[in-house]
Amino acid sequence: MPNWRSLMTGLFAVIFSAGAVMAETDPLPSWKDGAIKKSITDFVAHATTEGPDFVPAPERIAVFDNDGTLWMEQPFYFQLGFAFDRIKTLAPHHPEWKDRQPFKGLIEGDLKSALATGEKGLLEVLATTHAGMTTDDFRRTVVDWTQSAHHPRFKRPYIELVYQPMLELMRHLRTNGFKTFIVSGGGVEFMRVFAEQVYDIPSEQVVGSSGVVKFQRAANGSIKLIKEAKVEFIDDNDGKPVGINRFIGRRPIFAFGNSDGDHAMLQYTAAGAGPRFLGLVHHTDAEREYAYDRQSHIGKLDKALDEARERGWTVVDMKRDWKVVFPHQTRPAN
Amino acid sequence: MPNWRSLMTGLFAVIFSAGAVMAETDPLPSWKDGAIKKSITDFVAHATTEGPDFVPAPERIAVFDNDGTLWMEQPFYFQLGFAFDRIKTLAPHHPEWKDRQPFKGLIEGDLKSALATGEKGLLEVLATTHAGMTTDDFRRTVVDWTQSAHHPRFKRPYIELVYQPMLELMRHLRTNGFKTFIVSGGGVEFMRVFAEQVYDIPSEQVVGSSGVVKFQRAANGSIKLIKEAKVEFIDDNDGKPVGINRFIGRRPIFAFGNSDGDHAMLQYTAAGAGPRFLGLVHHTDAEREYAYDRQSHIGKLDKALDEARERGWTVVDMKRDWKVVFPHQTRPAN
Repeated sequence: MPNWRSLMTGLFAVIFSAGAVMAETDPLPSWKDGAIKKSITDFVAHATTEGPDFVPAPERIAVFDNDGTLWMEQPFYFQLGFAFDRIKTLAPHHPEWKDRQPFKGLIEGDLKSALATGEKGLLEVLATTHAGMTTDDFRRTVVDWTQSAHHPRFKRPYIELVYQPMLELMRHLRTNGFKTFIVSGGGVEFMRVFAEQVYDIPSEQVVGSSGVVKFQRAANGSIKLIKEAKVEFIDDNDGKPVGINRFIGRRPIFAFGNSDGDHAMLQYTAAGAGPRFLGLVHHTDAEREYAYDRQSHIGKLDKALDEARERGWTVVDMKRDWKVVFPHQTRPAN
Repeated sequence: MPNWRSLMTGLFAVIFSAGAVMAETDPLPSWKDGAIKKSITDFVAHATTEGPDFVPAPERIAVFDNDGTLWMEQPFYFQLGFAFDRIKTLAPHHPEWKDRQPFKGLIEGDLKSALATGEKGLLEVLATTHAGMTTDDFRRTVVDWTQSAHHPRFKRPYIELVYQPMLELMRHLRTNGFKTFIVSGGGVEFMRVFAEQVYDIPSEQVVGSSGVVKFQRAANGSIKLIKEAKVEFIDDNDGKPVGINRFIGRRPIFAFGNSDGDHAMLQYTAAGAGPRFLGLVHHTDAEREYAYDRQSHIGKLDKALDEARERGWTVVDMKRDWKVVFPHQTRPAN
């Protein structure tokens, strides 16, 4: 028979001291103190505290673009890097590629001549690397790539080039009852392979572009899902609010992007009633990462930046606001 | 300063006695004891216990058909009931409907003459009730309907005609680390309105058929998602595995249906490696609900029933296996 009075006193002591410890721990240690960090922590505190800006847990939906917002997108979208690497892996089985662009250029590492084939060549590369196989086989090729390929400048696996401050932000949101979703122009079947491992986001919370998938029942009863070389949905620009409606079915209250491709998603989020958080990652750090915005071919940030400044959205200046960029920078060097 | 020894002893006492109480509580009180109930509880116990049939939590994906599996589907799919009721609600604003089928029949309660217009008439009713409005406006019409409409035979709101044993089953799965999804031929935007309230399933875990939704940005900057009268995806038959792949991105280990429309979903689930649970609700209870299978126009169960018997899937005999059918039968009469 326990001493109940002592038990309850002890329990309260444990609970309150744990609360005090948590309140003192910085949930965003890779963010420099200042107005930007405060705009995030204040929003979360208000959404979870009884008062005029309280948001019930089921409505705490947060959406994040992927390329340029959660991981790097330079010097090319990483999914293109996957496609290029995959062509090299497949090349020994395709001797005919040796003399044919864009394959020749990719095999020889001459990206410029490969890309000279334009959209037509690119679509051929995507069809070769993303279609004509089962969904299970595709998944295996992506797993192989995440474990073997390295970024040309940073010499690290691509999945290590995610932004540590954004990982902390998503964790902070989840700790406070938010659900975090990826809403990206990237391929949904590509991202789902590593989203759980890298971002702690389960596959059904990944929204992205997709190709047609066909159900196939063989004569022996075996069942396959085959990826076809046909676009089904492009989850970019005005497609992002449509994708959110289709996959999530609820308007977010928190949205983070980095380019004009996220503009419609931010506007759609902003247009809901009640408290909203709108954020942009502004790539200003050529030394630790890259610096680009209005003139960039990849991740162009122009009109969304104007609206963000007009309407007082949170614009993260990577150089100014982030103590570190990548997870490996938080670990002791070995 | 608490008495730590006493505190810890007390804590253990609390934890272990709570565990004992939980183990003794039947998680499926509306299921009669027997092989069917045991097939469910054994599967869940094995999936969550270290051993050859253990399944890591992220792979514990369970999918459920809706019409005829989670709620009733007779004498017509409830979503059709919504459409028919909606026509009556809109009728005062459409005097021209008085002399035109299928509207005339629906307004006058003469379902037979309305349905005589066949597929063309039905599509017109669906377009009128499901398109040409914003997603937010559509949601409001469904909320109104769930609060006002009543089933013709049972004289209760449609959302009360869900199966109590299936609610218990889904809760038991979630308690054991499973994620529960609806995978239905019904409209995804229709089901999402009440799925959280009725089934405790959040909107992103509802997979269904959909129409095209268009993003619209007005000159004044206002943003709308408009439902168009154009089918985008039919989540039925072979579409179910495709829908699972698109929305969930992971093959389920547990699937429950009630008709041949669920056959491909069951086969796709069965075709994965490792332990699997495949279940069918067989409607055998004309007194408490309905009795129908091979000859039914709605919820026809024929080929899937044959395969279930051949392969030893769990076939629930509603009359034999369920103590009660609906939630209101578990509450004292007032």
